[in-house]
Amino acid sequence: MLKLFDLELSGNCYKVRLLAALLGVTLDIIPVDFMAGAHKADAFLKLNPFGEIPVLQDDELVLRDSQAILVYLARKHGGEAWLPTDAAGMARVMQWLSTAANDVARGPNDARLHDLFSYKLDIVKARHQSQHVLAIFETHLTSHNWLEFDRPTIADIACYPYIVLAEQGGVSLANYPSIHRWAARIRALPGYIPMPGQYQAA
Amino acid sequence: MLKLFDLELSGNCYKVRLLAALLGVTLDIIPVDFMAGAHKADAFLKLNPFGEIPVLQDDELVLRDSQAILVYLARKHGGEAWLPTDAAGMARVMQWLSTAANDVARGPNDARLHDLFSYKLDIVKARHQSQHVLAIFETHLTSHNWLEFDRPTIADIACYPYIVLAEQGGVSLANYPSIHRWAARIRALPGYIPMPGQYQAA
Repeated sequence: MLKLFDLELSGNCYKVRLLAALLGVTLDIIPVDFMAGAHKADAFLKLNPFGEIPVLQDDELVLRDSQAILVYLARKHGGEAWLPTDAAGMARVMQWLSTAANDVARGPNDARLHDLFSYKLDIVKARHQSQHVLAIFETHLTSHNWLEFDRPTIADIACYPYIVLAEQGGVSLANYPSIHRWAARIRALPGYIPMPGQYQAA
Repeated sequence: MLKLFDLELSGNCYKVRLLAALLGVTLDIIPVDFMAGAHKADAFLKLNPFGEIPVLQDDELVLRDSQAILVYLARKHGGEAWLPTDAAGMARVMQWLSTAANDVARGPNDARLHDLFSYKLDIVKARHQSQHVLAIFETHLTSHNWLEFDRPTIADIACYPYIVLAEQGGVSLANYPSIHRWAARIRALPGYIPMPGQYQAA
């Protein structure tokens, strides 16, 4: 069985649990004691030298990074639907995996780390970046039901958690109706699971 | 022909030019006047609402994000060698594309933006992150010739520019012999092109 080294409150872990649920894949969840710093202990650093959660283990294969794990699950269990393999299709999805790893990470993810987990970082900058990212998503989602194509892909799953958790970093989602409608589409997917403490649209 | 909206001094643009050169793909280079803020002007924001360079245009297809563009070139022109499509192989490469988009971006890339382009950011934090990332690369590359597998992939191309440009962000590469050997392997690849102002190992 696939082992997920997990933190319940991490949006990066949640995106893996969410895709697994949507694909009907069962995960063996191994909680990592984040508050005790278990992700920086030697045993965990052997799995992931970056000291970050999640990590997925499938027999001999050990994968770090939530986006890479989404790619793995999609290629192994999702077929072409969740991650197309033609050049243009794969690259279009890849754009949003980078957005999740960079722009979203530096915005709503960082702001939430500051507010919820007392990370020392420039909160003004993180909130400014959150607004910038949310505005781009809002505009894009006003003319698109999904981030790419006419269906959900791992692009949506990669970006969804920290976008909808923006309020936990002190950034209101009140003025982003297209983001709300996109989030509702994701929540309506068969097999959808929420995460603890997650924003719930009215 | 493939059009690349380019900035000569950008490591993210360079990685695209480098992979294209290694694959023997000719690019139509369109310089973007970064110093004049052309990447934040309306015409460019229509191509990439994030206002970031590079952007690749292939007829109707417009791709933002250097990692996504590497995926496109690899899938279209590189076959399985540069980016395998099996689940494990693709995910293993993907790990490093996220590392490029996140850990490397927040480390040597940010530090260089501060020193070379006067970006306002926490330079102490960026240099600390650079050391952290360089140490992980050094350890990994002490037992691996390439980041994944026994051959170069887009994992190497995605990470190479800002790792070897670390000194332009005030971080010495003197104590990283395995990184030097890895960089030398990349520079020895048929078709390799350097970038202006790039670090040259002895």
